[in-house]
Amino acid sequence: MPIAVDAMGGDSAPGAPVAGALRAVREDGTAVVLVGDEVRVREALRGLGVDGELPQGLTLVHAEEVVGMDEPAITPLRKKRRSSIRLCAEFVGSGGAEAMVSAGNTGAAMIAAKVGIGLAHGVDRPALAAALPNATGWTVLLDVGANVDLKPNHLRQFAVMGAIYAQVILGLEKPRVGLLSIGEEECKGTAFTREVFRSLERSDLDFVGNVEGGDVFEGTCDVVVCDGFVGNVVLKSAEALAEMLLHMIREEIGKSPLTRLGGGLCKPAFLRLRERTHYDQYGGAPLLGLRAGCFIAHGRANPVAVQNAIRRAVSFAEAKAHERISQRLEELHFTAEEGAKLDRREPKTASAEDGGSTAPRGATAR
Amino acid sequence: MPIAVDAMGGDSAPGAPVAGALRAVREDGTAVVLVGDEVRVREALRGLGVDGELPQGLTLVHAEEVVGMDEPAITPLRKKRRSSIRLCAEFVGSGGAEAMVSAGNTGAAMIAAKVGIGLAHGVDRPALAAALPNATGWTVLLDVGANVDLKPNHLRQFAVMGAIYAQVILGLEKPRVGLLSIGEEECKGTAFTREVFRSLERSDLDFVGNVEGGDVFEGTCDVVVCDGFVGNVVLKSAEALAEMLLHMIREEIGKSPLTRLGGGLCKPAFLRLRERTHYDQYGGAPLLGLRAGCFIAHGRANPVAVQNAIRRAVSFAEAKAHERISQRLEELHFTAEEGAKLDRREPKTASAEDGGSTAPRGATAR
Repeated sequence: MPIAVDAMGGDSAPGAPVAGALRAVREDGTAVVLVGDEVRVREALRGLGVDGELPQGLTLVHAEEVVGMDEPAITPLRKKRRSSIRLCAEFVGSGGAEAMVSAGNTGAAMIAAKVGIGLAHGVDRPALAAALPNATGWTVLLDVGANVDLKPNHLRQFAVMGAIYAQVILGLEKPRVGLLSIGEEECKGTAFTREVFRSLERSDLDFVGNVEGGDVFEGTCDVVVCDGFVGNVVLKSAEALAEMLLHMIREEIGKSPLTRLGGGLCKPAFLRLRERTHYDQYGGAPLLGLRAGCFIAHGRANPVAVQNAIRRAVSFAEAKAHERISQRLEELHFTAEEGAKLDRREPKTASAEDGGSTAPRGATAR
Repeated sequence: MPIAVDAMGGDSAPGAPVAGALRAVREDGTAVVLVGDEVRVREALRGLGVDGELPQGLTLVHAEEVVGMDEPAITPLRKKRRSSIRLCAEFVGSGGAEAMVSAGNTGAAMIAAKVGIGLAHGVDRPALAAALPNATGWTVLLDVGANVDLKPNHLRQFAVMGAIYAQVILGLEKPRVGLLSIGEEECKGTAFTREVFRSLERSDLDFVGNVEGGDVFEGTCDVVVCDGFVGNVVLKSAEALAEMLLHMIREEIGKSPLTRLGGGLCKPAFLRLRERTHYDQYGGAPLLGLRAGCFIAHGRANPVAVQNAIRRAVSFAEAKAHERISQRLEELHFTAEEGAKLDRREPKTASAEDGGSTAPRGATAR
């Protein structure tokens, strides 16, 4: 079964998604359905030397509307029901493709996928996962933007989704799962995280307990679970900090002829650094918890990044990751129904007044 | 009036705090009271060439106990009432010094200061603020570790505290205050942040609205307000990411003779980068909302960092920043008493079920 690609999503659409899809078809032998404005997609294909008949494995589904990068997330649901992003998701939902890839508006892609593909059995909410580089590989951080105002069962489910994803995509047999908090001991964090802690500890996941912000980049665990507010803030602040530091390095190197010479000599090292850390290499962020795979590539995704996202989507589908998530939720009694019962049974602990005493022990101040 | 310095706090105590205090006395003409184990402090002073009589402006208060960096935050309250960190705070509280500096256990310092110095008039909770480097200067982020499970009035107060701090220490006339969230529009974020948004918008603070994680490092505002959970995670993940990137750069540069040569030539540029971003330069994180100044320096603070923290403490005291905070809270009706009334009046909005639709529009996925 093919992978559906939103041809109109991203800052350089349809150029980048079309080129990425073509690479996947030609280099990886993957079947791809491009969903988008037929005239513009054919134009992009002509620019890549494909005129007239499409290469074997590539098909085209016309979508007359496009959701812009700055339109509200709700657009594909209410205003643009014939948008490429919505039709792409519906094509997967109706069984025409086994997973989707979009570099479009993240919020819109999430809503389109939730509606068009639907939730996997037992799942409460889908979660967007990001893979962030750490000292030795990648850390899966979820949720990074889909969900706020959560209940403990949502985070339990995210832990399961993240672990299955790390198994399937990072190839880890027993991924170590950490709960993002502000101190390592069980008593640290909010009343909410303490409740999640207790149920993860009782599960047979490889739960390493609470982890702190630093652990995301230190490689001390493979999956870090948090609510979508915290995850989104961490992701965006990390992107901005990395950019700022690299910009400052360039600035400082540019200040004298000698350092400029040194900078020139260091170029291969900086290129290798970019390869180790850049989102191109990783491809896309999966929206987990749906009936099929959905990968959201960076808005600035180039053809290589789109191709990598398509590769992830293929691996995800081949491993039937979405079915494995539903199955694990049942085994652990974390399904939507059973988890909600668990939340009602859990004793409510801690008050809003314990601020001082939950202060992180030895927290580092700057 | 002198500044009280916890001589026993930090990874290289009493060496670093004693040397930092001596620099402040000699170079800046600041009066300092060193609080700590007399024998060990005198030993450290001898190592710095001070034998017998203390230099003018330096005095010593003996404290027999020390709170270790890994002891629970509660230690100075329950177990070690004669610890240097607690006596240091009490010395300020009783009027013997006008502010304190400690490079010790952050959680313990916060509790000792809250008890020993006490809350400023109208304040609900003290907040720990960090100054993070941005493209053009520093962004004040608060709270970074003291408070979880908050009410909207706590964040309103943090906004006021952060603004006064940025006025007094960064010298900004009208600091721009942002509320950390996951999208810029008023409707984005959690029910909690939306409530805070409405009251900050009605205030006469220079409130720029919601800001995202990236804004912390982009210099788009001067003060970023968030709860202590999010702030602590952002601070620690940022520290770890910066360390990881610099480590990876060193690693990649070390891989070939040419890049090693280039790295050698670039050394002055990397040193300047360090100066622009390192916590040494900034000194210490203030615990705001107390009856006097309290600065918590990094556990790894060297003498220069301690001296810089003492300088901040002097500026803070001279500007009577703690009194200005109380005054502004009254003006804005954000005092503990009035704010609590405001919280009861605010309409509760948004449910836990609107996750999808609050997804950030155009959020960047990796």
